[in-house]
Amino acid sequence: MADRVVISVDAMGGDLGLQATVPGALRALDARPELDLVLVGDETLVREAIERSGGLVHLEAGRLRVQHASQVVAMDDLPSRALRMKKDSSMRVAINLVKQGEAQACVSAGNTGALMATARYVLKTLPGIDRPAILTAIPSIKGHTRVLDLGANVDSSAEHLFQFAVMGSVLASAVDGLQAPRVGLLNIGEEEIKGNDQVKEANRLLAASSLNYIGYVEGDDVFSGEVDVVVCDGFVGNVSLKTMEGVAKMIAHFMKEEFTRNPLTRLAGLIALPVLRAFRRRVDPRRYNGASLLGLRGIVIKSHGGADGLALANAIDVAIDEVHLAVPQRIDHQLEALLTERQAV
Amino acid sequence: MADRVVISVDAMGGDLGLQATVPGALRALDARPELDLVLVGDETLVREAIERSGGLVHLEAGRLRVQHASQVVAMDDLPSRALRMKKDSSMRVAINLVKQGEAQACVSAGNTGALMATARYVLKTLPGIDRPAILTAIPSIKGHTRVLDLGANVDSSAEHLFQFAVMGSVLASAVDGLQAPRVGLLNIGEEEIKGNDQVKEANRLLAASSLNYIGYVEGDDVFSGEVDVVVCDGFVGNVSLKTMEGVAKMIAHFMKEEFTRNPLTRLAGLIALPVLRAFRRRVDPRRYNGASLLGLRGIVIKSHGGADGLALANAIDVAIDEVHLAVPQRIDHQLEALLTERQAV
Repeated sequence: MADRVVISVDAMGGDLGLQATVPGALRALDARPELDLVLVGDETLVREAIERSGGLVHLEAGRLRVQHASQVVAMDDLPSRALRMKKDSSMRVAINLVKQGEAQACVSAGNTGALMATARYVLKTLPGIDRPAILTAIPSIKGHTRVLDLGANVDSSAEHLFQFAVMGSVLASAVDGLQAPRVGLLNIGEEEIKGNDQVKEANRLLAASSLNYIGYVEGDDVFSGEVDVVVCDGFVGNVSLKTMEGVAKMIAHFMKEEFTRNPLTRLAGLIALPVLRAFRRRVDPRRYNGASLLGLRGIVIKSHGGADGLALANAIDVAIDEVHLAVPQRIDHQLEALLTERQAV
Repeated sequence: MADRVVISVDAMGGDLGLQATVPGALRALDARPELDLVLVGDETLVREAIERSGGLVHLEAGRLRVQHASQVVAMDDLPSRALRMKKDSSMRVAINLVKQGEAQACVSAGNTGALMATARYVLKTLPGIDRPAILTAIPSIKGHTRVLDLGANVDSSAEHLFQFAVMGSVLASAVDGLQAPRVGLLNIGEEEIKGNDQVKEANRLLAASSLNYIGYVEGDDVFSGEVDVVVCDGFVGNVSLKTMEGVAKMIAHFMKEEFTRNPLTRLAGLIALPVLRAFRRRVDPRRYNGASLLGLRGIVIKSHGGADGLALANAIDVAIDEVHLAVPQRIDHQLEALLTERQAV
């Protein structure tokens, strides 16, 4: 029998709160037999939600328990305020459980800034990592591409970009089972004005390392399947991610408009419905939910604020995989090896 | 009768060269009666291409003339090399015609870096403009959004971002006929770690100006139709534009795969074809071809390197509109007014 995996879930986080976290948790318990969950939040409310969703059986079987927390971090709370004033928030308590070894990973759909600040404060970064980064899988023509940083850092230095590359490479190697993930550095295509100083220097560091560095890539390469890990500053990565969401929404909007234009187009839409549904499943953002906060001494997964139960269950899946693969330990080892290698040159 | 508009076209530029520029030029002449064109390039080759495309009638009518240039800027020529070594390139001569007053605007599908460097060297920037910027219209749910800079500048300062905002606002006001275009500054959504110093300072400058500044926007807002002009550093803008292209291509690829999966889905695709075609027309990037190099003492329009005739004709359309609306003069006046206003505070 596989070892048990215990994950703490910030049950109050996200736009939908308990309406998403509890159904998501129950779905994950059904799907992953090795999983035990701790739902953190207002005990009465969480228990009520579990009962409503028909989850009492898991409570009785001991696979699910509720840990009380008296506060909630709001989606617009400043990270500093959450850190100072909300020491008994569901988010903080869920992360504390990882620190205390009572859970092996934490999942939260709460405010990203607060989650990052709290996780960093409670868990600390790995040796050699200056700043944690946010990584997620983005669909590509051939599968997916892992992109980091997606907004934890602005004004990343060359050294930061190098650390992101190491973390992304380790994650892709472990989770996607790739021997030597192809790592690309996001840049723009104009000659001479190519890149800023940080990107150019990071390019030098990466080219001199034993990572499988393939050089500069551009914004459209993320989707081509020709690169496994794309490294960028958080400002750029966040804009790129939001651009992707915006384009996808606009295209969906236009498609709907065209198919509902008149009775004839509606009929065509009806006939094409199974195909359109298969298409939609393929680009369903819920399937890609669960961003990793990398560089910490522990596993923390950020679920999208608007995630529903299906999406949250996917984020829990990501957490379980990272537990099985001991991602933080692997990053630690790989970074140490690469820095030793650099000093030896 | 409307005044004649004379546009010079770099006939050798772009991936397709004469195969795209000559048909594009003829298409534009047919569509815009006020237009005269100067095609710049190897005289023999250009004349042959005109003859092949049935354009002799325009040559004879005097609406089209050929200006010889002995060199061509390659798509991978370094801007500095193009500037120093290719003084008789079709690109350079086409821009010279604007400088000399023989054309009122220039269109080129050549290498962006070389075009920007040459245009800046030959035409110079407007007073008060430190760096020209590249602007294009990007489709949105409600029409389009104008975004700049798209790659002419990296590491833009707050003052540069402010100048971009003025240029974008003037262009949207003139070309889209908007009284007070809504200007947004591209940023990321995380509180506290929000933005870098340049963006924060630009936010202050814009908020204090009489532009219709609506504050920070995120990557997905470009497509929502809630903002008319989005201002950003060229690195970020270029990545965002390429991301958009990449997502659109990936979605088209998935759609095609789903509709060609088996005979049944093929049939559904056949029935849905008119709708899918209407949809494709709507997001056809050729309709958005023609990026403006703003901040120069003259009008220069960059056509996409891969543009075909239809796309190139669209870029010529953009040039004609900017001539009619005297865009550089308007930018000059507006910038002067805003800087005077700032000093008066």
